[in-house]
Amino acid sequence: MIKDFSKISMAVIRRLPKYHRYLKELLEKDIRRISSKELSDIIGFTASQIRQDLNNFGGFGQQGYGYNVDLLYHEIEKILGLNKAYSTIIVGAGNLGQAIVNYTSFTKTGFMPKAMFDVNPKLIGLKIRDLEIMDADNIETFINENSIDIGVICTTKEHAQKIADRLVKCNIKGIWNFAPTDLEVPDDVMLENVHLSESLYTLSCMINHMRE
Amino acid sequence: MIKDFSKISMAVIRRLPKYHRYLKELLEKDIRRISSKELSDIIGFTASQIRQDLNNFGGFGQQGYGYNVDLLYHEIEKILGLNKAYSTIIVGAGNLGQAIVNYTSFTKTGFMPKAMFDVNPKLIGLKIRDLEIMDADNIETFINENSIDIGVICTTKEHAQKIADRLVKCNIKGIWNFAPTDLEVPDDVMLENVHLSESLYTLSCMINHMRE
Repeated sequence: MIKDFSKISMAVIRRLPKYHRYLKELLEKDIRRISSKELSDIIGFTASQIRQDLNNFGGFGQQGYGYNVDLLYHEIEKILGLNKAYSTIIVGAGNLGQAIVNYTSFTKTGFMPKAMFDVNPKLIGLKIRDLEIMDADNIETFINENSIDIGVICTTKEHAQKIADRLVKCNIKGIWNFAPTDLEVPDDVMLENVHLSESLYTLSCMINHMRE
Repeated sequence: MIKDFSKISMAVIRRLPKYHRYLKELLEKDIRRISSKELSDIIGFTASQIRQDLNNFGGFGQQGYGYNVDLLYHEIEKILGLNKAYSTIIVGAGNLGQAIVNYTSFTKTGFMPKAMFDVNPKLIGLKIRDLEIMDADNIETFINENSIDIGVICTTKEHAQKIADRLVKCNIKGIWNFAPTDLEVPDDVMLENVHLSESLYTLSCMINHMRE
């Protein structure tokens, strides 16, 4: 169905989760069929953008009928890889790390936290949602014994690159980075950043300049 | 210095926090002067992109000299509005809300959490970093008495729009939304979303299709 994924821009890929979320809501409302125009009204992208985006993956739409919501939802689910399960570990068991464990545990998707790690003796041994916080020295052993797909980095920026290097050596597939720094990883390790401060600074910039 | 902010694209604005972060690191290393080419090597944008971006705000660079790091850093700080202080409240005092309070308390920037709110009687009255969790019924009174700039929404998606409506009625300037939904707010209220699940799904998409 997807001919050459490398030709699809990251901008398109980043819009897919939004399609996925809105299509899910349509399904929950038992709406089975939708035109690109109607989808545009709900989701906020232009109808032409929607047609272009979905054409990257083979179209899904039929002239005069629109999109089959159920089919489109499940195809996008597959494209996003949400039909599979992922084992994760969280490195850095502070507030943010704990929030992430709770967040992913609740999402009912296939992302399963398997362990948390920290260097702080006060945290090691504590349990967060049945997950024991382990000594960060044990990261390699744990990954090798449990085949972990994704490492979530919630450490300070000073520790983040070293942790990333260790995860890479254990053949991790992807890193979800919350540390406020840009990590260097090989091309075959997928890296996704959540830079909270950048988001907050964008907000303060808008507050200062775009409210006139 | 900024002639017409409305003509500057959100893509440019979203890159500014990254310039800010890298320029800060340069200052910490006592690097006082940098060419767009050198900046490009560090930050990862092309030199031409960097010149274009910074030209939006009046340039800063001098032919044959490059950029004055200190000047550029402080100008971008001003553009981002980081030379001011912002009072914030956090609505939703679960793990994510608590993580945000801790996060913004630690950033040493001007974002100051003034109160947390929740509807859960088990949370109301607890203290997080000297901040008491208050009953969500008191949001309006608190904002009116304390002139709050930014509301952080860490509720479920079901409650998020109602909370946003209430914040808007209290003349909040900006909303930092962590609930997995798209909020509707008037044009003069600035809205910035952190959709964690969209970021995670982007990662699983890349893991599935871009590692070949």
